[in-house]
Amino acid sequence: VSVSPADAILITYAISGPDPLGTAEAIRVEQTIEFPFELAPTWIQEQVVGSIVETNGSEITIAYNPDVTGGDVVQFLNLLWGNVSLFTGVRVVDIAIPDSVLASFPGPRFGVEGLREIFGAPTRPLLCTALKPMGLSAHDLAGYARTLAEAGFDIIKDDHGLANQPWAPWEERIAVVSETVRQVAETTGHRSVYMPTLNVPADRIVDAAHQAKQAGAGALLLLPGVTGFDTMRALAMDEDLALPIMSHPSFLGSHVVNQGQGISHGLLIGMINRLAGADLCIFPNYGGRFSFSPEECRDIQVRCSETVGSIRPSWPSPGGGMTLDRIDEMITFYGNDVTLLIGGALHRGDLGDNARAMVRAVSGR
Amino acid sequence: VSVSPADAILITYAISGPDPLGTAEAIRVEQTIEFPFELAPTWIQEQVVGSIVETNGSEITIAYNPDVTGGDVVQFLNLLWGNVSLFTGVRVVDIAIPDSVLASFPGPRFGVEGLREIFGAPTRPLLCTALKPMGLSAHDLAGYARTLAEAGFDIIKDDHGLANQPWAPWEERIAVVSETVRQVAETTGHRSVYMPTLNVPADRIVDAAHQAKQAGAGALLLLPGVTGFDTMRALAMDEDLALPIMSHPSFLGSHVVNQGQGISHGLLIGMINRLAGADLCIFPNYGGRFSFSPEECRDIQVRCSETVGSIRPSWPSPGGGMTLDRIDEMITFYGNDVTLLIGGALHRGDLGDNARAMVRAVSGR
Repeated sequence: VSVSPADAILITYAISGPDPLGTAEAIRVEQTIEFPFELAPTWIQEQVVGSIVETNGSEITIAYNPDVTGGDVVQFLNLLWGNVSLFTGVRVVDIAIPDSVLASFPGPRFGVEGLREIFGAPTRPLLCTALKPMGLSAHDLAGYARTLAEAGFDIIKDDHGLANQPWAPWEERIAVVSETVRQVAETTGHRSVYMPTLNVPADRIVDAAHQAKQAGAGALLLLPGVTGFDTMRALAMDEDLALPIMSHPSFLGSHVVNQGQGISHGLLIGMINRLAGADLCIFPNYGGRFSFSPEECRDIQVRCSETVGSIRPSWPSPGGGMTLDRIDEMITFYGNDVTLLIGGALHRGDLGDNARAMVRAVSGR
Repeated sequence: VSVSPADAILITYAISGPDPLGTAEAIRVEQTIEFPFELAPTWIQEQVVGSIVETNGSEITIAYNPDVTGGDVVQFLNLLWGNVSLFTGVRVVDIAIPDSVLASFPGPRFGVEGLREIFGAPTRPLLCTALKPMGLSAHDLAGYARTLAEAGFDIIKDDHGLANQPWAPWEERIAVVSETVRQVAETTGHRSVYMPTLNVPADRIVDAAHQAKQAGAGALLLLPGVTGFDTMRALAMDEDLALPIMSHPSFLGSHVVNQGQGISHGLLIGMINRLAGADLCIFPNYGGRFSFSPEECRDIQVRCSETVGSIRPSWPSPGGGMTLDRIDEMITFYGNDVTLLIGGALHRGDLGDNARAMVRAVSGR
């Protein structure tokens, strides 16, 4: 290849169907020039179109010239999964990214070590919960937030579907809950933070993030499947904001849940989130309400933590139907570099008692 | 239901698996309160959680309170396909949206009639082509643009993967090609427009759109799968911009190509694009390089044109491996309200000859 593999973006596709190599030949053109190969100038055939560099059964690796991305995350995403998303029987299972392209990704601002410092938790898992159910007033949600902060939860986030509903309008909710959590943190000395959902219009999202910070919010929840990975990237790079960011998988599921099509769980929910600046990556834990297997959850965890240039590791944050009696099992599975996300189950019985039991279960780890 | 079906958002899911009703029970909770149903206050169970209103075999319709969207497109998308995107065996096959929610969608600013006026084409199909291949200089791309504009193409768009690559940097390309196409339009009297790709960083996209307009671009290409549907909505509602918008399906494929999972082709590529302001909706035509069937293409066309409150119809824009000899067949299939998108095939032989043949093939229709 004209661009040496060391400097190339390598994307490995698992390709089903009778002719994996023929499909790979189509992909290397489709993801770059979208033009009849034989009509392109020779130098473009050699330097702009991707090159097949490895074939391992039906897994085929294509090397792309990093210049194809133009240094932008949006075009990196388009190279990764633009037109090929319309193919059937193609799944991205590995990527390798040279330093020149990694430079366009911020990665997590805080990552594992940074959040350990913020929460005064040198070794234990972090604890996150969600304010719910939708329909409660801002005042009622703040009441729950008080109980959860007093119990010692690290992150108290909005349920991701809280937006600007009439029951708890965005501005009111952010103001009331931020202030409540701030007061508790002052009293107890434990730094709980409130993390509002930036499930807000595209032309409001940057202002909303700053407004949330000004109100006292200590972190931000993003929905990159709805508002875009590059919006997360921009907020992660915003020096005046400088808040931890958690990514929620809303609207992203179809990219991962279909066998043999899409992007691997680890690459999309672990790696892409991480590259785009997510300090914490939410995903549905195995054995909960969703479809992920233990292997798929492990894949996400590995992609959150593996070495990728100087990009900081992210926290895997399994949730989605977690219960108190699974804490030990989850810590055994994920280790201590995990943010346990538990929501509705805390409301079975007394919220305060359950929250304190949860905090006890991770303290001293 | 507490919210009468006439005022509700109705979403119909095709559900596979042994217990469609049980899955629907899970969905109506998952997409709203994400909270143990029996623990929610009665009024929230009745008014915030969705209600199953129709069961037709494995197709089940749930009615949602429109207040769940909070009047925002982002939360509408989250209601439509947030957590349920992580389920297997669920596909959204129909939606009905009350006027109160439609008010949050701009719909196309121009639509079918508006673009017919702009291009002086009262009845014929419109013609669109893409500048390619990636790797050419801005000057060379402008040379192609000149030939295509002189031939009488209506819309000359960037290939969607053109971003800020070193071969034709964004600002230079937009300036040079806009000016070229403007000059030709002045000379010939036919209003060809240049449509640059807004495949640019999230924090630059609004400025880039205005910069493109100032440079003389006459329309904009958006990639909502990468930069978000709500970014398109915001640009469509921008009164100072007021340019036609075309939507490209990059990164959206996984939502539609998997049998039994995702969102129907027509709803995502036709209806959601249209609601979010796309005047033209690109999709891969049947029989080209991609996987769409004639029925799926028809579905998109129907969703582009069916009556939805006062939302204007969009142009279906089939492309992806189109050739000159398929023009008649495509017009027979789609009728005259279609924007034919032909790219690389124009370069087989003489570009100018092919472009003029294409223009002749639609003129007088």
